[in-house]
Amino acid sequence: MEMCLVNIIVIKLTGKVFDEPQLLKSYIELFKKLIDKWRLLIVTGGGSLARRYIEVARSIGVESNYWLDEIGILASRLNSYLLISALQPYSYPRPVTTLSEAVEATSIFKIVVMGGLIPTQSTASTLLEVAEALGVKDVIYVSAIDRVYDKDPLKYPDAEGLIEIDASKLIEMIEQSILPGEYALIDVRALEIAIRSGIRIHVVGYRNVENIDKVLRGENPGTIINPR
Amino acid sequence: MEMCLVNIIVIKLTGKVFDEPQLLKSYIELFKKLIDKWRLLIVTGGGSLARRYIEVARSIGVESNYWLDEIGILASRLNSYLLISALQPYSYPRPVTTLSEAVEATSIFKIVVMGGLIPTQSTASTLLEVAEALGVKDVIYVSAIDRVYDKDPLKYPDAEGLIEIDASKLIEMIEQSILPGEYALIDVRALEIAIRSGIRIHVVGYRNVENIDKVLRGENPGTIINPR
Amino acid sequence: MEMCLVNIIVIKLTGKVFDEPQLLKSYIELFKKLIDKWRLLIVTGGGSLARRYIEVARSIGVESNYWLDEIGILASRLNSYLLISALQPYSYPRPVTTLSEAVEATSIFKIVVMGGLIPTQSTASTLLEVAEALGVKDVIYVSAIDRVYDKDPLKYPDAEGLIEIDASKLIEMIEQSILPGEYALIDVRALEIAIRSGIRIHVVGYRNVENIDKVLRGENPGTIINPR
Amino acid sequence: MEMCLVNIIVIKLTGKVFDEPQLLKSYIELFKKLIDKWRLLIVTGGGSLARRYIEVARSIGVESNYWLDEIGILASRLNSYLLISALQPYSYPRPVTTLSEAVEATSIFKIVVMGGLIPTQSTASTLLEVAEALGVKDVIYVSAIDRVYDKDPLKYPDAEGLIEIDASKLIEMIEQSILPGEYALIDVRALEIAIRSGIRIHVVGYRNVENIDKVLRGENPGTIINPR
Amino acid sequence: MEMCLVNIIVIKLTGKVFDEPQLLKSYIELFKKLIDKWRLLIVTGGGSLARRYIEVARSIGVESNYWLDEIGILASRLNSYLLISALQPYSYPRPVTTLSEAVEATSIFKIVVMGGLIPTQSTASTLLEVAEALGVKDVIYVSAIDRVYDKDPLKYPDAEGLIEIDASKLIEMIEQSILPGEYALIDVRALEIAIRSGIRIHVVGYRNVENIDKVLRGENPGTIINPR
Amino acid sequence: MEMCLVNIIVIKLTGKVFDEPQLLKSYIELFKKLIDKWRLLIVTGGGSLARRYIEVARSIGVESNYWLDEIGILASRLNSYLLISALQPYSYPRPVTTLSEAVEATSIFKIVVMGGLIPTQSTASTLLEVAEALGVKDVIYVSAIDRVYDKDPLKYPDAEGLIEIDASKLIEMIEQSILPGEYALIDVRALEIAIRSGIRIHVVGYRNVENIDKVLRGENPGTIINPR
Repeated sequence: MEMCLVNIIVIKLTGKVFDEPQLLKSYIELFKKLIDKWRLLIVTGGGSLARRYIEVARSIGVESNYWLDEIGILASRLNSYLLISALQPYSYPRPVTTLSEAVEATSIFKIVVMGGLIPTQSTASTLLEVAEALGVKDVIYVSAIDRVYDKDPLKYPDAEGLIEIDASKLIEMIEQSILPGEYALIDVRALEIAIRSGIRIHVVGYRNVENIDKVLRGENPGTIINPR
Repeated sequence: MEMCLVNIIVIKLTGKVFDEPQLLKSYIELFKKLIDKWRLLIVTGGGSLARRYIEVARSIGVESNYWLDEIGILASRLNSYLLISALQPYSYPRPVTTLSEAVEATSIFKIVVMGGLIPTQSTASTLLEVAEALGVKDVIYVSAIDRVYDKDPLKYPDAEGLIEIDASKLIEMIEQSILPGEYALIDVRALEIAIRSGIRIHVVGYRNVENIDKVLRGENPGTIINPR
Repeated sequence: MEMCLVNIIVIKLTGKVFDEPQLLKSYIELFKKLIDKWRLLIVTGGGSLARRYIEVARSIGVESNYWLDEIGILASRLNSYLLISALQPYSYPRPVTTLSEAVEATSIFKIVVMGGLIPTQSTASTLLEVAEALGVKDVIYVSAIDRVYDKDPLKYPDAEGLIEIDASKLIEMIEQSILPGEYALIDVRALEIAIRSGIRIHVVGYRNVENIDKVLRGENPGTIINPR
Repeated sequence: MEMCLVNIIVIKLTGKVFDEPQLLKSYIELFKKLIDKWRLLIVTGGGSLARRYIEVARSIGVESNYWLDEIGILASRLNSYLLISALQPYSYPRPVTTLSEAVEATSIFKIVVMGGLIPTQSTASTLLEVAEALGVKDVIYVSAIDRVYDKDPLKYPDAEGLIEIDASKLIEMIEQSILPGEYALIDVRALEIAIRSGIRIHVVGYRNVENIDKVLRGENPGTIINPR
Repeated sequence: MEMCLVNIIVIKLTGKVFDEPQLLKSYIELFKKLIDKWRLLIVTGGGSLARRYIEVARSIGVESNYWLDEIGILASRLNSYLLISALQPYSYPRPVTTLSEAVEATSIFKIVVMGGLIPTQSTASTLLEVAEALGVKDVIYVSAIDRVYDKDPLKYPDAEGLIEIDASKLIEMIEQSILPGEYALIDVRALEIAIRSGIRIHVVGYRNVENIDKVLRGENPGTIINPR
Repeated sequence: MEMCLVNIIVIKLTGKVFDEPQLLKSYIELFKKLIDKWRLLIVTGGGSLARRYIEVARSIGVESNYWLDEIGILASRLNSYLLISALQPYSYPRPVTTLSEAVEATSIFKIVVMGGLIPTQSTASTLLEVAEALGVKDVIYVSAIDRVYDKDPLKYPDAEGLIEIDASKLIEMIEQSILPGEYALIDVRALEIAIRSGIRIHVVGYRNVENIDKVLRGENPGTIINPR
């Protein structure tokens, strides 16, 4: 199986990376190396910062899901700033906030970083949307979990990580609640975008920075979600 | 059953309305009357214009779903302009393009109009998103179809329009393909927003302008989708 | 006669092109070929879409010329989107909306597309304005009519297409109503910009895509309007 | 003859006003008084500042009419700032730069100020464009010259100031060079907008601040240009 | 001594408030009460969030003070979002990012919130800048420390909190390092703005929410810094 | 002593340059020559234009320092336009108005020009801020005065121009009023930014255009302010 990631690599970094500065630093080293050959579009999750601020917002009386999501988005952009500042002068100097700005910025800058785009939408969906906008056919989803599992690993000790799965099969599993949210990793909407635009998702665990290199060499260190 | 539409009414107008100038004119008369008591946020569909331009785009070689969606969004904004210009000087003078702009504009102007927001997302989802952002709990979905049906009316002559349905039940029917897209009217994502934020959707047929008045008087001339 | 179109070619495409997808496709093929040697700034007319939407606006009671023009401008931008999407990834991902943005975008992107700029102004004027802003001295006006005529061809069977004409002479003919609007092709204001900035206008018929190539080779397949 | 300036007054102040601080101060006093009853949209000319900076630009080698016009526009905006700062907190805190922003700002603020809009266009045209956008049917043109003359006063000692004139007649006089630019005051394009949208232009001399009051009382202290 | 806070109250909330949700909630209750009589402009500090993210940035190799400051500013804006969301629908729906936007937004909305404005500048300076822009002559600085001290309280057990001090005297103490940064509370630049524009600074401790009410009643629960 | 101005040169041009078109022209020739090897970021002062407009503003009753500063900033941007237009097509087509825009624009354009950024801040501070944002370690301050003096030359005939001085020493002299404003050239805040980010300031007189070349060759034709 050959990668067809030409030119632009689109990556989502789970928010967990931003809780571990040493790990974050390794990713930054990797990204600096990658720009010899590629342009990078990186989507940052909101992670524990988003969760903490949403919790504070709730505790002071904010009930609107719109506003809780907006706070999560700004938190993800604060994480974007860490990458942007560390990757100067190669990086576009702001988190991108629309898809059209992403298209423009990746035409000019080696590295473009963004957080969430719009309330009601996960950063996994953002990953697929921006890949679709850039015409990229493989994305790397650096996730808190190493693999997509075949059933809930907390309930079933024999749950197994999958090498490959079709997006439509994964949608079915999510709709039938075979996989709880945290093990599904990815929401139906993101998967539907993958299918409609033929985008393959390379899920890899976030603890091993080299996973990205492996995917770029054509290996599969996690789960590949095929767009069918 | 009492309406709790306080202050702002959020309405989606199917794109079909823009193909029938006389009907459109009646809606405009209605909106002018409504602003004595309410502020209005109106989401316009792209309708036949969107379909035609997307078709042309395909015929000249555009394959990217992102770009096809962008064309559909701009088409829906051209429809917005018809309302905006006819509702001057009460209307915000541009189609709103972000949720935050919608929140700001409805604080100032009697009437705010918008088309689609972002690729991969239906204008039905936009309707629910903007209602969530404005904290509105009832929305009026002026649709090509009068009611949500219990099964596919094209296949089953005994299909019946529903008076009321739970959003979760409708999601189930869509996931199990009991209802084809055109009769479901609304996508899963829109329904999920309705549920998470407790927004009731009043579906009414677009041919009868008075349906909006009826909903505002607490009647149910179509189907009510309850947020549970 | 030698062309002095260095570097940037500035072209106006009549809105009629967007009613004929096959023809539009040929233009797109041509533009893809041209960017080997040139950068392109293309102004799109609003054509039948603009006319139709302006008519609908009138029929629902819009009397303001400002708003009718705004609708025409948005229609011309919807036409721009067709070119932009078909010319990805070489094209700036939005229709340019100010002259300053045109200057910036053409410094970065191979292809920049725009519709109308401001109410009260024809897209022919936009063509000359943007040429002036970019410092370009020859523009190609791909028009519904093949040539500028010496009198009204509908009234006079002996009316003849001109090979060349001075802009000041054409202004005179328009002011004395020798040429009706539709055969003048271009308004006084556009011609005045041409004169003040020494910009030659190459009028060619839109049915023959190769006319652009001919102009670039130094031929004159239509009428040249000289800036004096 | 009755004024139909309802609600918004649209005024152009010749740049000469900004060379005479005492006079400028009187205008400011007047504007502060007027906002009891009206909202104001004021277009500021570039005057001697624009001329001086354009001259410097030429002397350092700038030949592009686009850039010379841009410099003139920024100069007119610097004049706008004088009014904006002196009319705080009633004035919109920036010079408006698009017609759509003018429509929005006048819905919110008592006083909105703007300079030129776009190269190739006089501030007199801007005056008519913004009036058309706001739906205003009478504009006050506070000009360097008190009246429109029937012929060139420098050549003909018997030249007389006109009480009234039709815009179409004035266009004719300008096209036939009966009036040199400086006595025509206003360009063909501005007059064409006046005609198409039925906007009456009240030309008054700038030296007498009370002229504005007179126009608002229905008097005619200068020349009225009728939109026909 | 009488307060001359007419209409707009300008307040800086130390970042510490955002670490204590219960306290933050009390401030929100207060602000909701205050808008019966006043409009509010609130500047939020970055607090522990800013410090934490700046530290992470340093640990991953960011040395540029510009970027460290930008991260601090975004952190302060995330704190702004907590207030904005909790104060809906009275609050402007975004943190203000320029002084001109602050002037505009406070003309429309009851509550406007902002974080830092520009690198190299403390949020205390932002407080004074925005007060100057809004023409406000008294600001309330809700600070981590209750009072300005006459010397370093950590070194001198007899250090005393001051009731009143002249800004110029405080500048002197800071320049002569009599007060370490954390007890000076405020930087020279902020004090210079206070002096040049005659703005009185009411420093109060953040633990007691009622301090704001006290200042508004004309009491002095902390230190008054007089602008001379 | 070796220059470490890699890639980008950051220069402030005193507003006085814009009062002498011949001199300005020489600077433009120089800048055109320099872009063979460097990218340029130029900060323009407001000079006599700013002073004149601020004076007019005062005379018509503007007392707010915020608005007087805003007028000064716009004046400095009008000076920027002179450079921008004369340096086309190499220059970014607008004065940059935020630091982030400066970072972006210098990544794309050979020449970027800006005036002041924000009220309360000198263009000397802007010079240091933008150098910090761009990561540049040497800036050239083309000043009305040739050198920093050791005392007030107007009072002391034996005052001498300095070859070198530490920024902290200069801060001391300013704080102790040893140097009046006009001979200090630079304010404390600018010097503090220089110190915190290790930026060396090369002060040179504006009358001799070659001074810039000299600095770039490693010579010291004025005073070097060392960042310590």
